[in-house]
Amino acid sequence: MKTINVGLIGLGTVGGGVVRILKEHHDDFVRDQDIDLRLVAVASRESEEADRLGVRDIFSFDGHDVIRHPEVDVVIELVGGTTVAKDFVFAALNAGKSVVTANKALIAACGHELMGLAASKGTEIAFEASVGGGIPIIGPLRHTLAGNRILSVVGIVNGTTNYMLTRMNEGALEYGEALREAQAQGFAEADPTADVEGLDAAAKIAILATIAFNTDVGLAEVATEGITGISPTDLGHAREMGYAIKLLAIAKRTAEGIDIRVHPAMLPLAHPLSSVNGVFNAIYVVGDSVGETMFFGEGAGAGAAASSVVGDLIEVGRHLAYRESITQPVWDTEGLPIRPIDELETSYYLRLPVPDRPGVLATTAQVFAEQGVSIYSMVQRGATDGTAELIYVTHTAKESAIRATLAGIEATGILTGPAVLIRVEGTKD
Amino acid sequence: MKTINVGLIGLGTVGGGVVRILKEHHDDFVRDQDIDLRLVAVASRESEEADRLGVRDIFSFDGHDVIRHPEVDVVIELVGGTTVAKDFVFAALNAGKSVVTANKALIAACGHELMGLAASKGTEIAFEASVGGGIPIIGPLRHTLAGNRILSVVGIVNGTTNYMLTRMNEGALEYGEALREAQAQGFAEADPTADVEGLDAAAKIAILATIAFNTDVGLAEVATEGITGISPTDLGHAREMGYAIKLLAIAKRTAEGIDIRVHPAMLPLAHPLSSVNGVFNAIYVVGDSVGETMFFGEGAGAGAAASSVVGDLIEVGRHLAYRESITQPVWDTEGLPIRPIDELETSYYLRLPVPDRPGVLATTAQVFAEQGVSIYSMVQRGATDGTAELIYVTHTAKESAIRATLAGIEATGILTGPAVLIRVEGTKD
Repeated sequence: MKTINVGLIGLGTVGGGVVRILKEHHDDFVRDQDIDLRLVAVASRESEEADRLGVRDIFSFDGHDVIRHPEVDVVIELVGGTTVAKDFVFAALNAGKSVVTANKALIAACGHELMGLAASKGTEIAFEASVGGGIPIIGPLRHTLAGNRILSVVGIVNGTTNYMLTRMNEGALEYGEALREAQAQGFAEADPTADVEGLDAAAKIAILATIAFNTDVGLAEVATEGITGISPTDLGHAREMGYAIKLLAIAKRTAEGIDIRVHPAMLPLAHPLSSVNGVFNAIYVVGDSVGETMFFGEGAGAGAAASSVVGDLIEVGRHLAYRESITQPVWDTEGLPIRPIDELETSYYLRLPVPDRPGVLATTAQVFAEQGVSIYSMVQRGATDGTAELIYVTHTAKESAIRATLAGIEATGILTGPAVLIRVEGTKD
Repeated sequence: MKTINVGLIGLGTVGGGVVRILKEHHDDFVRDQDIDLRLVAVASRESEEADRLGVRDIFSFDGHDVIRHPEVDVVIELVGGTTVAKDFVFAALNAGKSVVTANKALIAACGHELMGLAASKGTEIAFEASVGGGIPIIGPLRHTLAGNRILSVVGIVNGTTNYMLTRMNEGALEYGEALREAQAQGFAEADPTADVEGLDAAAKIAILATIAFNTDVGLAEVATEGITGISPTDLGHAREMGYAIKLLAIAKRTAEGIDIRVHPAMLPLAHPLSSVNGVFNAIYVVGDSVGETMFFGEGAGAGAAASSVVGDLIEVGRHLAYRESITQPVWDTEGLPIRPIDELETSYYLRLPVPDRPGVLATTAQVFAEQGVSIYSMVQRGATDGTAELIYVTHTAKESAIRATLAGIEATGILTGPAVLIRVEGTKD
């Protein structure tokens, strides 16, 4: 049996979870995995957590002490972000050490460079925890599903927004109420921007698309829209029409390139992703041989992420201990183009607040006709205050045409408030 | 780049799927996986399929020709069963060749022996396709989830019975009607015994438990009950009470050992497995760190199984091509005992057909009291023909006590037909 010495940078909730697993299950890993994983160095900006976890004797305030530690074989980076964490990861790989990280921002931003560096140094970097917390998805995409051409990856990969949308739907909460509730429950941060604007999900789908399509996809290439414009009104309309509204992270292989985007979408209630509620995450993958598969679990939470970190650590450790050469993961072997979102073709839900007077329906319908957008259904709902809502659902149309339609309707000056546009996924036209 | 020569025994639907994937995606695997997979020998009892697949030039009627072929590095066994297939797999491993198989019966029966033989020969045997068709589950349990103590694995792992129960529930079909429909659709075989009696599911859960609990679990140790006693009446009662009825394959880690069984079970509608319908399979895994996860997909079908076979082939091929030593998978490192099903504690649904006359309720209730089984709810439904049904749901009780209760009620001579007993899963008492 071989010993692998582990260094850990970052003692937040996930780091604490990793320390606990390594203590509680050390003997299990010796027995089952034939590997003796020893935590020999930890670093964090604060020492209190090191005291609490009983690792003060191997503690340093400087992550570089962990990297420089002569015995450390594998460095676990759980600092997050793309500033100091980036320095740590590059330094560790440059020092010839293997790296395990949960850092989605870093992998989405520098994945290609990091893979190249690892390859040149004969080491490796693993990042299962960067997407979907404890849900096994990077591993299955790389290994079990490797015989497939992956056709699409569609995920609910942000627990905060899924919790909020679930509560808005169940409890008819307004966006602001749902956000405050999520913050009170510890599911949303004080500054929720990265979650509610879809940026967290965008980093995750960039990583998934990179692996699924063997093409380096950067964060900037993901068309991203958050949930701030969603209201219980739209959730109710969707429900009546047989849809759920979810913040979807979507990546599809198309003849024109990769279609990649994050936005709220209407999804038929029969779709497996529609019943994924609360803070749970799920990733739905379609392959040319395997057909439909879905991976479901806790996307956040210290235990879930720590589970994936330790899973990677065992893999990386066994590679170091038992095999001579490391086969590098696939990265950008296909190099497909990204299809601009203007080229997207799907159907759309469009809710227009209008005054309740003659001619508004004709005025709006005229704009759809001018842009060549075919209407699948239209419902007008009057209110008692002299306003009304027009709820259009279109047949398949181009994103550019629907955008022009919306601009044309706005230009008529007829709207009494902001229009709501939601893309519809998972249906045949 | 290295070349791996592949031999395939068995050209049924899955074998045909493997041949097609290897042809269509050969260049993708060269580009993405850095491996040149060449099919150099195939065998089957019939030559027609070899003609159709365009592999007649490398065809033999004898599987041993494939194994003896000097260039073959990896043997894929897709014959199935435990007679000739067993000979092939042992012969291949003895010849120092790696093996990929979808043979659940063989792995459930001889897994321990096969792992030992592979280890002694410095080769390996992979079997992702033996459970859940295309659903990645063996890989995730072994790798991504390796940091967890697995607490339970509960699966819908037989598509035939899940299709039948779905149709019985949706269409109020009787068992026989659902079976005929499944046979007409090609989802059930002419002799459906292995599926409807739960034997197929039992082999699969034996394999999953072996991996999840690091303990060799044999097929004979799985308490098994099929769906032949289920009727639309019970599905309707369950639905009214907020449950689905599914054929579950259950393996749980308990203080007294492994609780392992296959039987129809009532499952709360909110449980993620409850909405898995038709021929789909899903496997729900709880780990001490990761919490709840679920893996969903097509459990049967040529494409799905072929996907897993080729995924294994790529892994095994890369091991052969790029690493010196193979680390053997875990097998029986814990060696936990199996808990007898008599020791099971759960709640139970019991439907008793009785005459509609005074005293029947008191007579049956008395037997529950004598056996110390506490009743959670009871509903009596009268029919117009002078018969009635008593529908009992118990609090948590021991299997041995509920069996004694049922025997005691039968002994009173009060029943007008067979009683139906269904275990309830996934609820707290």
